[in-house]
Amino acid sequence: MKEFKDPKALSEQIIQGDRRSLSKAITLIESKNTEDRELSAKVLEYCLPHSGKSLRLGISGIPGVGKSSFIEVLGLSLIEKGHKVGVLAVDPSSPISGGSILGDKTRMEELSQNENAYIRPSPTTGAIGGVAAKTRESIFLCEAAGYDVIIVETVGVGQSEYQVSSMVDLFLMLMVPNAGDELQGIKKGIMELADLVIINKADGDTKTLAENAKIQYQNALEIIKRDRFWSPKVTTCSSKEKRGFEEIIGFIESFRMLALKDNHLQENRKAQTQNWLEQLLQEHLKTYIKQKSHLNEKVKGIEESVFENKLSAYEGAKQILKSLFDS
Amino acid sequence: MKEFKDPKALSEQIIQGDRRSLSKAITLIESKNTEDRELSAKVLEYCLPHSGKSLRLGISGIPGVGKSSFIEVLGLSLIEKGHKVGVLAVDPSSPISGGSILGDKTRMEELSQNENAYIRPSPTTGAIGGVAAKTRESIFLCEAAGYDVIIVETVGVGQSEYQVSSMVDLFLMLMVPNAGDELQGIKKGIMELADLVIINKADGDTKTLAENAKIQYQNALEIIKRDRFWSPKVTTCSSKEKRGFEEIIGFIESFRMLALKDNHLQENRKAQTQNWLEQLLQEHLKTYIKQKSHLNEKVKGIEESVFENKLSAYEGAKQILKSLFDS
Repeated sequence: MKEFKDPKALSEQIIQGDRRSLSKAITLIESKNTEDRELSAKVLEYCLPHSGKSLRLGISGIPGVGKSSFIEVLGLSLIEKGHKVGVLAVDPSSPISGGSILGDKTRMEELSQNENAYIRPSPTTGAIGGVAAKTRESIFLCEAAGYDVIIVETVGVGQSEYQVSSMVDLFLMLMVPNAGDELQGIKKGIMELADLVIINKADGDTKTLAENAKIQYQNALEIIKRDRFWSPKVTTCSSKEKRGFEEIIGFIESFRMLALKDNHLQENRKAQTQNWLEQLLQEHLKTYIKQKSHLNEKVKGIEESVFENKLSAYEGAKQILKSLFDS
Repeated sequence: MKEFKDPKALSEQIIQGDRRSLSKAITLIESKNTEDRELSAKVLEYCLPHSGKSLRLGISGIPGVGKSSFIEVLGLSLIEKGHKVGVLAVDPSSPISGGSILGDKTRMEELSQNENAYIRPSPTTGAIGGVAAKTRESIFLCEAAGYDVIIVETVGVGQSEYQVSSMVDLFLMLMVPNAGDELQGIKKGIMELADLVIINKADGDTKTLAENAKIQYQNALEIIKRDRFWSPKVTTCSSKEKRGFEEIIGFIESFRMLALKDNHLQENRKAQTQNWLEQLLQEHLKTYIKQKSHLNEKVKGIEESVFENKLSAYEGAKQILKSLFDS
């Protein structure tokens, strides 16, 4: 595919909203091939000035909570209101054995066929940091392609929520309508990330359960104080009966308005980028040390002392840094 | 307390097993005062060669699973077998609002009064990384003081398990005897950290539930393939009736034997130290940049370009690194 070897041409196609080019560019981002990666880096540089204009939503919840049906209904409702919706999946839930527990596009049948939706399943391999990097860059490309709501989906396994919350503006936590057991297992740290807690399956036999859960979550969230412009909301919905979505979109819109006021959104993104830069700097530093063999030897010696308990890790890190700048 | 101002004397007291000195040193580690930190760094350097000889156990589980009673019974059983047991608590569950949801020594009444046990509650403040650093150093000090089983306790909130598993040899996951709901919320990533899954409260009304849960967890763990010398075990216990602990200690002893064979334990600790060094290096680098004002200005400029989407974070990190070494 020669047409894809020219980063400028590919970027222009993306900016014009061409889905095939967008998919190709994300594939380049996910590639392990160095040439592909260099190409994707150039595409990203071209696309960057056109990015940043979406609202980025993170959605998490345990397997079985009904994330796919929820995103299907939410996505279609947003499209009805004139939005273009990009859906990206992150699945760093299994750092050891690898493999994605998220399915593919077929999970969201109607949404995936809508011309105003773009759905990209999770890359199935890569370190947690790697998946995060790829998702982050994919967000920018989707934005450049004109998607103005980006949904980043993940599973409820702790670390993935932290990863995703570090790249979105607004974090939605989907819950099963089983207050008692859910609250026992409540992950305080993760609940603190949630801007909107949504109890799904508020229909049929589980409707009352969902309403009760709502009250319990509201009480739980009141305990968690947050120093932020937005206090977390709790609501119920039924993806099956397509109910509750007007209210959810209402919350999302209020959040956006409040976030844009007083620059909260930009400040938050800036802090996220700062963190991300620091992570990347660390990666580059590692590569740099590996490349310089004399440094490598010196660093190895210091490391050995730390491994043998002759030197604390704290002192070791200090000495490594010193040797970097003295070289 | 003038006696504590001499790091060598304090270290010698610790190595002789003096609990008051050990407590003082951990307090110095947890201090925010620079002088205290410098003192504690020296104490650590003295103590390091005497550390490393324990088996380090991580124990996690959601609130309500009965961690305190479990550790009380496990700790006393280990002491009966001639061990000295140190218990440290890590609670990074609440990075935003702060505060420890773990109680203090009074939770483990009998154990805390035993002369062969040392219990240290979690530091109540500090960033996640900070708490990890303090716990890590506290492990070394406890080891130098002669404790040969160190239990690091945390709550089941995702990130804390990753933190703790990065500083222990063996990771125990405590579960409530409620297979259905528990399995729904099963955190695959975290289950993969567990070397031993223990279903607590296998007594009275919940005994059958616990046995059923055991079978379900066994099935679940079989799916998770691990490339390790040890395949995770599942067992039940009752802290109330003090049953199941012989088997648990049996598993711990088998693990220790297998881990020492073929150097698995040392290899794992080396990998953990390597990771830790990298994290510390990052911290030192940040401090270094802040101290050098001309670097600081240059770095700020690059950061601004990244914030304004003129430059990708990837390229930004590369340029920052370059400016560090060109200066």
